[in-house]
Amino acid sequence: MIKVIKIGGNIVDNLDLLKQFVKDFAAIPGMKILIHGGGVMASQMQKSMGMEPVMIEGRRVTDEDTLKVVTMVYAGWCSKMITAMLQAEGCNAIGLSGADGNAIKAIKRAPVHVESLGKDVDYGYVGDVKSESVNAGFIYSLLERGIVPVFNAINHDGEGNLLNTNADTIASSVAIAMASYRYRSPREVCCRCEECTHCSDDGRLTHETELIYCFEKDGVLYDKDDESSIIKEIGFNRFQELKAEGIVADGMIPKLSNAFKAIEKGVARVIIKHARNLGNDKGTVLK
Amino acid sequence: MIKVIKIGGNIVDNLDLLKQFVKDFAAIPGMKILIHGGGVMASQMQKSMGMEPVMIEGRRVTDEDTLKVVTMVYAGWCSKMITAMLQAEGCNAIGLSGADGNAIKAIKRAPVHVESLGKDVDYGYVGDVKSESVNAGFIYSLLERGIVPVFNAINHDGEGNLLNTNADTIASSVAIAMASYRYRSPREVCCRCEECTHCSDDGRLTHETELIYCFEKDGVLYDKDDESSIIKEIGFNRFQELKAEGIVADGMIPKLSNAFKAIEKGVARVIIKHARNLGNDKGTVLK
Repeated sequence: MIKVIKIGGNIVDNLDLLKQFVKDFAAIPGMKILIHGGGVMASQMQKSMGMEPVMIEGRRVTDEDTLKVVTMVYAGWCSKMITAMLQAEGCNAIGLSGADGNAIKAIKRAPVHVESLGKDVDYGYVGDVKSESVNAGFIYSLLERGIVPVFNAINHDGEGNLLNTNADTIASSVAIAMASYRYRSPREVCCRCEECTHCSDDGRLTHETELIYCFEKDGVLYDKDDESSIIKEIGFNRFQELKAEGIVADGMIPKLSNAFKAIEKGVARVIIKHARNLGNDKGTVLK
Repeated sequence: MIKVIKIGGNIVDNLDLLKQFVKDFAAIPGMKILIHGGGVMASQMQKSMGMEPVMIEGRRVTDEDTLKVVTMVYAGWCSKMITAMLQAEGCNAIGLSGADGNAIKAIKRAPVHVESLGKDVDYGYVGDVKSESVNAGFIYSLLERGIVPVFNAINHDGEGNLLNTNADTIASSVAIAMASYRYRSPREVCCRCEECTHCSDDGRLTHETELIYCFEKDGVLYDKDDESSIIKEIGFNRFQELKAEGIVADGMIPKLSNAFKAIEKGVARVIIKHARNLGNDKGTVLK
């Protein structure tokens, strides 16, 4: 089992929440990968340097100066602070951008038409990531040695440029890539039985992979104002019903759509929960 | 052979020099490790944020805000920019702080008496590094897979704190640690001959390790105003003579003393040269 866990910038920016999260994350046994944001801190840093953060449809317009700031904040302060905190909890973490070990490549986004503005927007040094551009072999070589990759949202294009990418997409891309990575274990032997869906024709094995999104709610809620109204489990058909009933609406629709795409591509399940509940089973399981 | 190469902040801050250096570094065959500074940029960043850099005897006094800035600059921007540039040259680099993979631990420096000020100085979040606190096994596992570690001057104390350390000392500590690291090669076989100094009793081998300091001069000079007056080779006895003659003076004395300490501890040779000469044999060889 490989667990891929994503936390947002609001947790990274809250030292009490982060400390608790780090303890809970360190306590998870087995193979695990952390993906973190840092957007709150990046905006603060931009302002302290006299820059005005520009966000269009939730994405940061990233000119040269902004790229420098987000790289410093995500890949510098956030990455190394979290890594040092995990090390102190006995978790052998390694803070990585996509450039490190050529772990993740991104493609610079071409200017896109933004409906709400009625014009094309050039996001600058912003990149898009696909699961095919994740170097699963390198990541697995770390996991195999008990090392825990901690990814930030800075990736590279292979031509010397850094690109600002979306941490949610990195999380799903990494989870999909790890779910389909076929490893040869020195200990386990493929059963080669007819019913087995675990191993592939060449006798290599795949790991069941779980993707956990930690966000500011306890899960998908029946009533968005009632944190106790968590929907425990949602299958793809139930998701369609919940959309039709208007229970899943707005920003939750793309979140859940992306989760089901990851499941379609081999991720065993996606769990949506609050970061403070990482250590317990509170949350919504999508599968 | 393992080459450990150190560049200072003045090269990192000069894009033309850096580009040339990256090309030359990428072209070096075999196992190699880069250690980089970033002090020039860190001071600029502090000033742009309204902070005044405080240096005492060449070391930056590092309070909490300064630690954040140096971590952002060294481990964020400098580390990821250099790593992405190396990747573009086909060199599979990985940018690391000491916290990453628990690569290097540092010990927080206690307040020290500074003669020139006549008082004790608390440098804050400043750490000291020894070769014993370098995780040579982890570094070797990367080198073995063709991955090139790129270290910045940020390390950790193992208790969750980041510490600002001296890049020159990291370079010599890493070189000493790698020189004494005993690996078991699947290809090479220990000769077990009586004269062999290469392998140890258990049949493991060590790599000859070379330490290269790139700085702003072409090497150790007979005449400090004449860049062509490079002394090609200096042994320990010649070093004593050069000191007595006043040819090696001031800041060069601790530089060379540290180099000979590294040689004493197993590093095959130390080379002092200008970064632009990485691709040729111009420079001073200490051995």
